[in-house]
Amino acid sequence: MTKQTKQKKKRFPSELRYDLVGQDWVVIATGRAKRPEMFKKEERQKNALPKSKCPFCNLKDQEKPILAYEHGERVKFKKGSIPKSWTTIVVPNKFPAVIPGDVLNEHTEGGIHKKMNAVGFHEVVITSHHKRQLAQFSVDEIKEVIEVYRQRYLALKRERFVNHISVFHNHGAEAGASVAHPHSQIITTPLIDVDLKRALENSKNFFEKNGKCVYCHMNEVEQRAKKRIVFENDQFQVICPFASKAAFEMIISPKKHTPYFEEITQWEKMDLAQAFKQALGRLYKGLDDPAYNFYLHTAPAGREKYPYYHWHWTVLPKTSIPAGFELGTQMEISTIEPEKAAEYLRKQ
Amino acid sequence: MTKQTKQKKKRFPSELRYDLVGQDWVVIATGRAKRPEMFKKEERQKNALPKSKCPFCNLKDQEKPILAYEHGERVKFKKGSIPKSWTTIVVPNKFPAVIPGDVLNEHTEGGIHKKMNAVGFHEVVITSHHKRQLAQFSVDEIKEVIEVYRQRYLALKRERFVNHISVFHNHGAEAGASVAHPHSQIITTPLIDVDLKRALENSKNFFEKNGKCVYCHMNEVEQRAKKRIVFENDQFQVICPFASKAAFEMIISPKKHTPYFEEITQWEKMDLAQAFKQALGRLYKGLDDPAYNFYLHTAPAGREKYPYYHWHWTVLPKTSIPAGFELGTQMEISTIEPEKAAEYLRKQ
Repeated sequence: MTKQTKQKKKRFPSELRYDLVGQDWVVIATGRAKRPEMFKKEERQKNALPKSKCPFCNLKDQEKPILAYEHGERVKFKKGSIPKSWTTIVVPNKFPAVIPGDVLNEHTEGGIHKKMNAVGFHEVVITSHHKRQLAQFSVDEIKEVIEVYRQRYLALKRERFVNHISVFHNHGAEAGASVAHPHSQIITTPLIDVDLKRALENSKNFFEKNGKCVYCHMNEVEQRAKKRIVFENDQFQVICPFASKAAFEMIISPKKHTPYFEEITQWEKMDLAQAFKQALGRLYKGLDDPAYNFYLHTAPAGREKYPYYHWHWTVLPKTSIPAGFELGTQMEISTIEPEKAAEYLRKQ
Repeated sequence: MTKQTKQKKKRFPSELRYDLVGQDWVVIATGRAKRPEMFKKEERQKNALPKSKCPFCNLKDQEKPILAYEHGERVKFKKGSIPKSWTTIVVPNKFPAVIPGDVLNEHTEGGIHKKMNAVGFHEVVITSHHKRQLAQFSVDEIKEVIEVYRQRYLALKRERFVNHISVFHNHGAEAGASVAHPHSQIITTPLIDVDLKRALENSKNFFEKNGKCVYCHMNEVEQRAKKRIVFENDQFQVICPFASKAAFEMIISPKKHTPYFEEITQWEKMDLAQAFKQALGRLYKGLDDPAYNFYLHTAPAGREKYPYYHWHWTVLPKTSIPAGFELGTQMEISTIEPEKAAEYLRKQ
């Protein structure tokens, strides 16, 4: 993908490796390194730090901020400094899974095993409260976080080797949050992951066959059926999907067909913030503050166009642990019908 | 797939649902039902029961046993009774994810959403010790468990609607084991999951292009490279795979090309048992008894032949929790290089 330019001797600390059989890629992120012994039970990280020791309450030990907002307005601050006050701030991840770099350095081991440097950007979006979480935010506060996601998305999209931008939020230790202070993350990858590739391919095929977007079509089905809708406003709907991969999974998607999250308007942002508040708030209340992940699926960030795709967020509560069956078959087992889950969430 | 015969009014308690976009299937298993409220934190199951309350030490509350072994020999017992003594026993799962049935009852909701009954068999393979786990077993004891897997595999293969048989073992609550007493599970599905389908397709393509099996080829590469081999004997090798999906992942595979696990010979079973003991024992020692899952990948159980496939077991320690990035991209992040993991495990 790129000419190999002058490269430092130092080993690049993170690699992407290609699985020949599964035909997908994994990240080997030794930059987040632990010694093998540290995988032992007692060494595993606890994440309930007090405010005084919280890395996100004490930004001076972090990488220098990239972007800050306060009450809906962008905060101006000198490069290399930390703004005095902010409500949402973005810093580079101190233990990144992908790392900025000039070369992809693709090569092959043993004649068959492909690898390349895991070149990219890994950022953390921190909100100022140590404990108060998104589910407890006002619509305006959530809107600010969405605007920060969008700003960073637009900026990262312009960078080299950015073909996909992953925006996600982990809440609770069971959902893999290694720091309890509420925060989201943004990771760019030089390639489009196989899962999105497949979704793009399937969306394209559906579009060509049926003359419409598969998500728009599914949204219409939901509008007729009603039973899986948790919440809706003018521009967004929150549903428990028909083929729910986990109990209480929710999809937040725009009613209008639109492939690119970053093209969201001011007006849409407000409705999206409200949809998020409803989804997370009902989960918080209904399941008593469960751990969850949410993540963005949007068309890739490269130059190619994907008019047939439809962006959306997935909210995935951590109500069970995928075990041998799910891992071995990639078939999820959900223990509640999405119709029942939606009904329960509507009542909260 | 089958004519819809006379069907009872009672709702079939488990469904397979097709994800239009991801093009894979999920199980909606309401037979394992919980009320929505029960997903709340405080309601989640604890699994450290004493022997007196352990469901697998007290088989009278279980479904009636199907097969039992004692010290390597099959135990004869009357149907509907529980044998007096046994070292490995198989019972139907009391809370099955799939359920025996006469009809698949495939249909479509809203014109696009496909579903069918989750018809199948869900069995539990229990070893007699309440605490002693496979990693602590002798090679002969592990061999017995493998033989029981094989016996049930062969029996289930003959049943209707069995197109795939999933054999797996969950160890530790973090790995999704809901009962602490060591046990494995067997689940049959009427369809071949997308993950295996893709692996079959890719194996076939590789075979057609290169005139050999992709796994055989990878095994040769490992034999030359040596650095990812944890253990080997005459017929099996245990490696940390090149594109490791998790820290300390191991693949146990036969050196000889062979698509079907169930065709394993007496002699091979011994070597496989030794490979298992080495893999699990080194993990137990090296990571201080971590939680893990292991599962079988073998050619489907239906009538079609898959000469290009190569069966193997995957051992996946639970050393981290897949979070927003992994869930959103299906790209795993592993925090140790497989070469380092293998080196560490070899030293144990």
